[in-house]
Amino acid sequence: MTTNNVTDLDRLLAPKSIAMVGASNNMYSIGGLVFANIKRSFQGALFPIHPKDAEVQGLTAYADISALPQSVDLVVIAVASHAVEAVIEQAVAKGVGGVVLLSSGFAEAGEEGIALQARVAQKAREGGVRVIGPNCIGYLNISGGVMANFALTPDEPLPPGGSVALVSQSGGFGSYLTTKGLLTGLRLGWFVSTGNELDVNIAGVLRYLVERPEVKVMLAFSETLRDPHVFIETARRAQELDKPLIILKAGRSEAAAKAAMSHTASVVGAVNVFDAVCRQYGVIVAHSMEEMLDLGMIFQDGRRVKNNRVAVMTTSGGTGVLLADESALSGLDVPTFPADEQQKMLDVLHTPFYGSVANPIDTTAAIRPDALKAVQQLVANSPSIDMMTTVTWARAIEAAKDLVTLYQSTDKPLAVLSTDLVEPLKEAGVPTYTDPQRVAKSLAALYRFSTRRPLTDGAFSTDANRAARARQHLELPAGEYVLMEAQGKRLFAEYGIPLTAEEWVHSEDQAVAAAERIGGKVVLKIMSYQLPHKSDVGGVRLGLQGEQAVREAYRAMLEEVSRRAPNAKLDGVLVQQMVPARMELTCGLQRDEVFGPMVAVGLGGVLVEQLAETTLLRPPFSLETARQALGQLLGGRLIQGRRGLSDEEQNQIAAIMVGVGNLALENDNISEVDINPIRVDEGKAYAADALVVLAGAPEVAH
Amino acid sequence: MTTNNVTDLDRLLAPKSIAMVGASNNMYSIGGLVFANIKRSFQGALFPIHPKDAEVQGLTAYADISALPQSVDLVVIAVASHAVEAVIEQAVAKGVGGVVLLSSGFAEAGEEGIALQARVAQKAREGGVRVIGPNCIGYLNISGGVMANFALTPDEPLPPGGSVALVSQSGGFGSYLTTKGLLTGLRLGWFVSTGNELDVNIAGVLRYLVERPEVKVMLAFSETLRDPHVFIETARRAQELDKPLIILKAGRSEAAAKAAMSHTASVVGAVNVFDAVCRQYGVIVAHSMEEMLDLGMIFQDGRRVKNNRVAVMTTSGGTGVLLADESALSGLDVPTFPADEQQKMLDVLHTPFYGSVANPIDTTAAIRPDALKAVQQLVANSPSIDMMTTVTWARAIEAAKDLVTLYQSTDKPLAVLSTDLVEPLKEAGVPTYTDPQRVAKSLAALYRFSTRRPLTDGAFSTDANRAARARQHLELPAGEYVLMEAQGKRLFAEYGIPLTAEEWVHSEDQAVAAAERIGGKVVLKIMSYQLPHKSDVGGVRLGLQGEQAVREAYRAMLEEVSRRAPNAKLDGVLVQQMVPARMELTCGLQRDEVFGPMVAVGLGGVLVEQLAETTLLRPPFSLETARQALGQLLGGRLIQGRRGLSDEEQNQIAAIMVGVGNLALENDNISEVDINPIRVDEGKAYAADALVVLAGAPEVAH
Repeated sequence: MTTNNVTDLDRLLAPKSIAMVGASNNMYSIGGLVFANIKRSFQGALFPIHPKDAEVQGLTAYADISALPQSVDLVVIAVASHAVEAVIEQAVAKGVGGVVLLSSGFAEAGEEGIALQARVAQKAREGGVRVIGPNCIGYLNISGGVMANFALTPDEPLPPGGSVALVSQSGGFGSYLTTKGLLTGLRLGWFVSTGNELDVNIAGVLRYLVERPEVKVMLAFSETLRDPHVFIETARRAQELDKPLIILKAGRSEAAAKAAMSHTASVVGAVNVFDAVCRQYGVIVAHSMEEMLDLGMIFQDGRRVKNNRVAVMTTSGGTGVLLADESALSGLDVPTFPADEQQKMLDVLHTPFYGSVANPIDTTAAIRPDALKAVQQLVANSPSIDMMTTVTWARAIEAAKDLVTLYQSTDKPLAVLSTDLVEPLKEAGVPTYTDPQRVAKSLAALYRFSTRRPLTDGAFSTDANRAARARQHLELPAGEYVLMEAQGKRLFAEYGIPLTAEEWVHSEDQAVAAAERIGGKVVLKIMSYQLPHKSDVGGVRLGLQGEQAVREAYRAMLEEVSRRAPNAKLDGVLVQQMVPARMELTCGLQRDEVFGPMVAVGLGGVLVEQLAETTLLRPPFSLETARQALGQLLGGRLIQGRRGLSDEEQNQIAAIMVGVGNLALENDNISEVDINPIRVDEGKAYAADALVVLAGAPEVAH
Repeated sequence: MTTNNVTDLDRLLAPKSIAMVGASNNMYSIGGLVFANIKRSFQGALFPIHPKDAEVQGLTAYADISALPQSVDLVVIAVASHAVEAVIEQAVAKGVGGVVLLSSGFAEAGEEGIALQARVAQKAREGGVRVIGPNCIGYLNISGGVMANFALTPDEPLPPGGSVALVSQSGGFGSYLTTKGLLTGLRLGWFVSTGNELDVNIAGVLRYLVERPEVKVMLAFSETLRDPHVFIETARRAQELDKPLIILKAGRSEAAAKAAMSHTASVVGAVNVFDAVCRQYGVIVAHSMEEMLDLGMIFQDGRRVKNNRVAVMTTSGGTGVLLADESALSGLDVPTFPADEQQKMLDVLHTPFYGSVANPIDTTAAIRPDALKAVQQLVANSPSIDMMTTVTWARAIEAAKDLVTLYQSTDKPLAVLSTDLVEPLKEAGVPTYTDPQRVAKSLAALYRFSTRRPLTDGAFSTDANRAARARQHLELPAGEYVLMEAQGKRLFAEYGIPLTAEEWVHSEDQAVAAAERIGGKVVLKIMSYQLPHKSDVGGVRLGLQGEQAVREAYRAMLEEVSRRAPNAKLDGVLVQQMVPARMELTCGLQRDEVFGPMVAVGLGGVLVEQLAETTLLRPPFSLETARQALGQLLGGRLIQGRRGLSDEEQNQIAAIMVGVGNLALENDNISEVDINPIRVDEGKAYAADALVVLAGAPEVAH
């Protein structure tokens, strides 16, 4: 329903004129609260609509939309659900740009509500009116002067505004986040709640916001993700525009995913796929609500770093050790200051001095405020560090003011640890945290984002000839959905997947001849649609060399298979080169309900059940991206050490991954691919097996 | 230096009379601040000591300790370091019980300070006076009325007291923690800073506190751990007395460990050993400062649960999903309420009702306060759940008061999510958090502690005969430190470690005969002190069966080894049974600088470099404990699935672990043991290799 045309949302989200249906003089009603909020913030033309009252909160009221003296950009609706359809009709007739539909009683309220929501959606779509909601709490656009929400009550101060935009499906949680964010010093310039998303959804709002010049950071709380393509396009734009996009995803646990699905009435994809897509496209996944807000705060001033060197300044050794600890564990460097810089600091310190100026700097609690300021300034000007952290007490107002001066004198990021919020720091927008780990994680996220290297897409385009050949390989007898390995290999060959040398034969003599041509040790595998699990019926013979061995194994295998699977229709034997394997991997294709095809690569072999770790990529992706994903497996240990994957081996495995991705993109009717194992050794990697399943296969087919 | 006699610290930490050397009328000095704090809190006899002033803060002052009209339990010292020695001498002469030494300028201040600290320690020890400090900020004992510290200034309110005790080496960070803890509603009854620990250290203070009836929870911030035995004994007592001990360890990163070592002038053991010891003895390791305080808060009311079922109550679907999510991810269950209980809740709710009473309960924001209270009470009384969480806003004072009523009406744990602190919740001690994950992790920790099953110790006792035999196996030629495999195996046999059948032979004919006796396939391994890495010189031959194969391999091996290692003195050949291995593990002994011998078990085989995961246990431990440790490897996946370790296999591996532990306890002169691999299959596990290194070996020896 959402289009990518971002200017579409301009009238809705940055209106020049607003009318409100349900505006009320009753300050205990939502209509009263929201209208008061709009009235105190909005500078453009504002029209309350009320069926009876001549004035609402001092402004001339109109009986309905049709009675308005002009069309408006935005209509806010806060009336009972049964009255909404008629209002939408009027809005369409009047040519309004957008609607914020606060009312509940729609899709969240059972079958009748679902039907009503569908009718409203259709009317709005046909009438060209964009809609936020229903069942939402509205939105906040500080720079546009639109406080069209009840996240805050009219007696709370208007937020000061800033570079952070927050989007949440849930109105209640969005309101909670807004309140908490403002309390903790987050500079919120935008908040949008999308509610039931009958038209505009989270992805669409983010797509709009990423282009807004005043927005520098985007936070999103998402239960379900509609329009994944818009989300990915937004992520790409955010990378280009150097704007971090930070997302907190509910429904990570199975139980909560179920709750979110019933609560939002939409599909929740697999959480590991979501995380993988975010990693691939540079979206930062927050692991907790506070982490999302923490990251918003570290990014709100737009500062960036070139390197990861942090200066830790404290008046207590223990705190310094803990801050240094958390910094190092978060991937930051706490370098010792060079001797000459240390000497400069010692020059301004008192004697005797029992602290340290190495880093962590421990000035001790006995330091005079002017000496502390001088040391802090030396650190801020130091070429040896990129960012700073220090500790303060909420009660130490003067120290906080000095920190504000320090912050404003430098473009180095500063993150402050404090027992609680401190008003001067909050007013100046200095990122402040109540926990050393949160300080370190925030600075580390800033460093990673500053020095990011986005993963590259692959240059995939459909090849009509290849696609036609692939279709032939996929033509199976009626009722069959799983390709025989030999067929799967032929399909793989079309997509450049490195394969072991192999021949599909139908007699013992052919097998012997094939084994001779292939050379070295070979494997025999029985081919049959009925036997996808060949080894379960004795249908695999390993390590055969020489005519006699091949003949004996061929006979014995056919004898055993015929005995153990008498009803299987056999279709020859695959004679396959047996390649060495120092390591075995797997590569597969799965299709996610939200994000579509995903290529998984993981460890194979004996421990595969014990080590169910995989990395996922969304095709198309480049060879370089595939290699980077490999490098992430097992925390990087797969490509390290004497037995780790060599450069050539990584390239071969990456080619398999890219091949599986392209195969998936070009063949919608393939539901599953599993290559297990990929055998890796001596600079080579081969797909040594092939399971390919077509869409429509009954669940038990493989 | 610390003894386990806990009553020793009674005069120091729960004094009936106090004198303060350095007590001052200058309220800007530490002597002024601390004396004011003692004066406003302490009910017993209190004597300021001042060289000139006749009165200090209104109390009669004495010129020095010898001039006091009586001895005192505690002397607090806040004078320059050079004056401390004389004060200690007077304290000893007067027969005081303990000293809190606030002064700095000791071990933290270079060589002179180190020497001074040593002299003071000796005088105090010889005089029978226990000492806290130096370089600390004192302590707080609310129930005893002792505010002998400057963590808080005299104008801040006295803490209300409570069941939580906090111990910190670092005074500065301890003060920070105290301040922050009080701000967030932690019910602190004790705070002790130990500083340089010239006598009393963290372990000793915890050992004392665990026996105090008013203490129900202990928090510790530790940079270095002296007296590990006292720490472990304390952990055991904490388990017995049902008192959680929660520790935050600085120096987890290499960089910070180095900083902590220089800053505290003592040894920091390996962090993985520290974590393993804590797990083994039931100590909870906090992963961040806020987590430590969070856990203190959830445990402060002493509530316990029998099961992990949590009720999530919100007025917003999104918040409920996130709380349910975090609960599930933390290992809690969010069960759906039974139909009859749901009906009771629906009976008190308004209609139409668009929320849910399944769990998460979403009462929606439209609920009336009395209905909300009724639903909450139904939940509190429900037999279907064990604990509760709900969400509130800091501004909603009335709602907070209702939550206090709810909390006090039930013995079920309640953890509240709030945008910020709420005074009524804080006053009533209701655990309150600003993040859903922190709510869930705290409740989950409460559940785990409530239902803990401590690991059991082994029944180790030295066996003089066995020890004597072991000593014989360890008698090596001068200059040799690494046992040959055959020797190592004989040592292993003494400790019940399951071994492959094997014979140590010195001729080809003997090898053939041995292979025949052993039966099946065998392995030949060259024996030489100079060749601990046998396979590097061709000194291992695998999979030999039959006379011819053994003879050929024997000759070829000796030829190759002689050629590749011409200077090695060979000492025969080990003929070893070749056992199948579905999986390979490793088991080793390492000695930690703090905790002594530790037995490590981990994965072996091809991926060992990639999967450097091990689990550590401190001997002696029981077979059951060894099995539990195995079960923790790879998040439990090692004992699951078709290829996982069977019951018998687990028992065999556990026997190897126990054996290695006993071997370490009985032979102090063994510095290292490495069994790699343990070969596991068909219900058996065997030590298939043995590396044993004696203490004193040069670093390059193996």
